[in-house]
Parts: sequence; structure tokens; C-alpha cells
Amino acid sequence: MNLPKQVRLVEVGPRDGLQNEQQPISVADKVRLVDDLSAAGLSYIEVGSFVAPKWVPQMAGSAEVFARIQQRPGVTYAALTPNMKGFEAALESGVKEVAVFAAASEAFSQKNINCSIAESLQRFVPLMEAAQQHGVRVRGYVSCVLGCPYDGEVAPEQVAWVAKELYAMGCYEVSLGDTIGTGSAGKVRHLFNVVGRDVPRHQLAGHFHDTYGQALANIYASLLEGIGVFDSSVAGLGGCPYAKGATGNVATEDVLYLLNGLGIETAIDLDKLIAAGQRICTVLGKDNGSRVARALLQGATG
Amino acid sequence: MNLPKQVRLVEVGPRDGLQNEQQPISVADKVRLVDDLSAAGLSYIEVGSFVAPKWVPQMAGSAEVFARIQQRPGVTYAALTPNMKGFEAALESGVKEVAVFAAASEAFSQKNINCSIAESLQRFVPLMEAAQQHGVRVRGYVSCVLGCPYDGEVAPEQVAWVAKELYAMGCYEVSLGDTIGTGSAGKVRHLFNVVGRDVPRHQLAGHFHDTYGQALANIYASLLEGIGVFDSSVAGLGGCPYAKGATGNVATEDVLYLLNGLGIETAIDLDKLIAAGQRICTVLGKDNGSRVARALLQGATG
Repeated sequence: MNLPKQVRLVEVGPRDGLQNEQQPISVADKVRLVDDLSAAGLSYIEVGSFVAPKWVPQMAGSAEVFARIQQRPGVTYAALTPNMKGFEAALESGVKEVAVFAAASEAFSQKNINCSIAESLQRFVPLMEAAQQHGVRVRGYVSCVLGCPYDGEVAPEQVAWVAKELYAMGCYEVSLGDTIGTGSAGKVRHLFNVVGRDVPRHQLAGHFHDTYGQALANIYASLLEGIGVFDSSVAGLGGCPYAKGATGNVATEDVLYLLNGLGIETAIDLDKLIAAGQRICTVLGKDNGSRVARALLQGATG
Repeated sequence: MNLPKQVRLVEVGPRDGLQNEQQPISVADKVRLVDDLSAAGLSYIEVGSFVAPKWVPQMAGSAEVFARIQQRPGVTYAALTPNMKGFEAALESGVKEVAVFAAASEAFSQKNINCSIAESLQRFVPLMEAAQQHGVRVRGYVSCVLGCPYDGEVAPEQVAWVAKELYAMGCYEVSLGDTIGTGSAGKVRHLFNVVGRDVPRHQLAGHFHDTYGQALANIYASLLEGIGVFDSSVAGLGGCPYAKGATGNVATEDVLYLLNGLGIETAIDLDKLIAAGQRICTVLGKDNGSRVARALLQGATG
């Protein structure tokens, strides 16, 4: 076993999580969530997305959220910027780190953003150049790395190609996303072995969805491959914990519980994190998607 | 990595699962569940418990269930027998394999069965002798191996002592149960390393609860330690998948999905297993506790 001594969690709840929630949520509640998360010790928070509100209404007001959050030293507040227009808006909001995304599956790329993978990568070139000019760091996401809703299996070599392109283009870290949650531990290890030939492992991250309940096993498998950065969503925001349509990100609390048990350092306070998650769930009127939160809140109150 | 090539799943849904469900369930529905499970390819099914119905009303009728199930060749139909009286009743029902249990925590033993661990082990001696006389195989359970609701931490050495006693007494296999689900991957590996000094690993099994969402990661960790037998419960029976009181066994479907992904042989048909689980959930009027079942049923119908 060669587990990382430290792990960084990339909290995607305010962006990836909330954009998939049905209920409207105010800027004030978004700000409170981000501030709660930084107070809990999360060092990286994806705050919002600069994208046309008509496409993603939940992300309207990201500029206002950025303006109002408490910017704690040492915490990265990032934004998703799918294109140059979004990047410029992020820049105006003083954002210092952005994220771009591409799919590992051609069918998903076509259906999701209406162009080929190669075209989508090409479109990022001016954005990457502008980012470099302005000293903005760019993180890359690759989706469908362990399966595609349209194409089924996705070859690890295909994932490696997309990851390598993003890396070569200037992304300092590439997050590999199991968008539909069909991956399992052995495939995860194989994937990081293949992609790790083209992108250094310390510049790779894992992004797992718990649709098939495999996310924590996949994270443990990734840790065994030396991966030390994981995306997660407080309270499992963005997915319904049990009803139909459950496709959510793994809950940050559950990942932290695993890491704590392994003695891996994160500097995150589990109790504060649970409180942050429970608060936003109350705002949304939904059950908490974190099993750890549910277990501990029950123990604490029952 | 030195994963087992084959894994045996011990299906505990009809016993450990149903005994923790609130709804009454008929003998006919129990029989149907067991028959559905054997038809799905499960080779080991814990069918019921021979225990005073006033203590565990859900297990009333176990004799009738045993009499009515279809006994497929190659399938083990086991019963929990907490004492000699239960063992004799099981024997009358023609049961060929029974299970006994002890706790790894003194506090749990006292609160659960009102005696010390040593006393509880001593009480099994006549049962073990009778089992040997009648050619009945005995499986041992140890509960609270990774935490106790009263004592908190439980030392692996304490677990090893109990497991070794059960093994020395004649249990051909000892299943280590994380009764409250607080274990995580690193502790699981350490536990099997310690207990594995006293009981051969191929005679150990893992029994994980998903209360903190760690069960599949724990099973993967166990596999990496060479453990090849796991207890699980179809549809996660015995626990509520999301509401308060969620303390259920890991869902068999979710374990099977992990094993299938790792290329580990089980001879279990996932589709039939899901159908068996969904049927009993409909009978019970509860949501399916398996994430794999929910994901695939949604895909199939939506």
C-alpha cells in the first residue's frame, strides 16, 4: 500500500451539485453554503458557473455569489467557464481559477455540447491563452471516463488522449469523471494506470458518482494508485439519495470519513461539514444524501 | 493485487434482513424469496432463525419455510440457532448448516444476550458437539468487530480471540461483522491481518453494514487481503436505505456489481437477483435499498 499522506477534496456542491437540483436557491443561500464550506476547512470550492442562465438557470447570479462570499486566505474559489464569454465574465468577477470540460465519449460530446471532442478542445485554445495572460489557473474535467450513456464502454486510451490534450493545453490538473457511475474498483485502477502514462498522477483527480454505490470503493482504489485529489459534493448535492434519478456526486462527508479512517490528512472538520450540508438540505427541503451525515445526525439527535 | 478468483456470497436477506423489517411477512413470501434467490444463483442462503418467536416475531415459521422451499442441489440453506433448543428445532427441520454468534465487545454481549463473551462461547459447546454428531456444519458470526455502540473502539486482538475460539470450537468459517458500520478500509485490512494470524483467511468472511456508506470500500479492502466470502442482503433488506435508522446490510446487488467489475466469479445472475429483491420490496412496501437495483430498474423502465 502506498496511500497519499494528504488528500485535497475539491468541493463541487455549490456548482455541480446545485445546478442539478430542481429547487431554486437564492444568492444568499449560495453564499452561506460557500462560506460554511470554507469555514469547515475545505481548501477548494467550485463556487459557480459562468454560463448563459437560459441554459443553466441554477447558476444565474454566480457573479454576485463571487462578490459576496468571504474569501479566506488559502482557499481556492473556482468557476466553471465553458467558453470564452464565460471566462471573460469570470475574469470580471476576479476569479483566479477556472475549470473547463471535455467528454471522453464522442457521442456524449455531440449530445451534450453539439461538437466533437477535438472541436471542443480546440475551442478552449483562446480561453487557455487568455487564462495564461491573466495568471488564471485552469483545471480540466473529462466526463464519461468509465462509461457513456450513449456509447457504453469507453476505452481508457480514449480517456488518456483527452486528458493528455487538456494537460498539454495548460490544465494544471485533470479530473477524470465517472459521470454515470458505472465504474468499479478494478476498472478505476486500470484507468489511472493507462492515463498515468500520459499525465503525471499527482496532476490527476478522481470524480466519482455514486449511482451504483461504487464511489467510495472507487476512491479507495484510486488512493491505492496514488491519486490524491477527489471531487465531491457536500450532502451529495446534485443527486437524489434514493429516489429515481439518483445520479449524484459522492458525498464529501462520506469521502472524508473514509480518509479519516485511513489516517489521511485533509484539515477538514467533519462536524462543521455535516452542519453545512444539513443546512443546505433544509433550504432545499431535501433529505441529506450523505450516509455519514444521516448516521451521525441520527446519533446526535436520537 | 492478489484478489480471489472466486467469491462466495452468503445471502442473509431472508434472516438477518427480514428480522429487522417492521412489516409482517408471510411464510409464502419468505419461501418465494428464498426460491428466487437460489434461482438467481446464490449458493448459500440463510433462510431463517430458530429462536423463540416472542423475541424475534419475524422469524416465526422458519420450520415451515424450510419445509416448503425448493432445495436446489449445491445450495446451502442455513439457519441461525442461538442455543441448543434452536439447534434441535433446526435439526427436526432437516437443516444441514447452522450459524452461531458471539460479540467482540463485552458491553454488546451483556446488553444483547445478557452474558459475557466467554459465557456465550461456553454455551455453544454442547451445540457444537451435537452438530458434529449429526454432521451439521456450523458457521460463526462475530459482531461489533469494528466498533461497538456501547464501548466504541474494539481492539482487533479482542476480535481475534473470539474468532479463534469459535474456530477452535469447530466453526468451519467465521464471519466478522461490522454491526454498526463504522469500519473503514484501512481498519478492515488491519483487522484481517490480525485475525488472520489465528484463523486461516480462507475460513474468514466479511459482513459489512452500509450505515456510513463504507461497505463496498470495506469489501474491496477485504478482497485485497484475500478474503473471499461476504455476507450481504438482497435489496439491502434489514436497513432503511435513507431514512433514520439506516443500519442495513450491504445490498447483495451492489456487492455483485463490484465483483463483476473486478472479473471475480460468483455464478450469480444480476438481473434475476434484482428481480428477487424488487419483488420482496414490493411485498414489504419499501424502497429498494440497492443502488444498483435502483439505477438499473430506472434505466430499464425510464
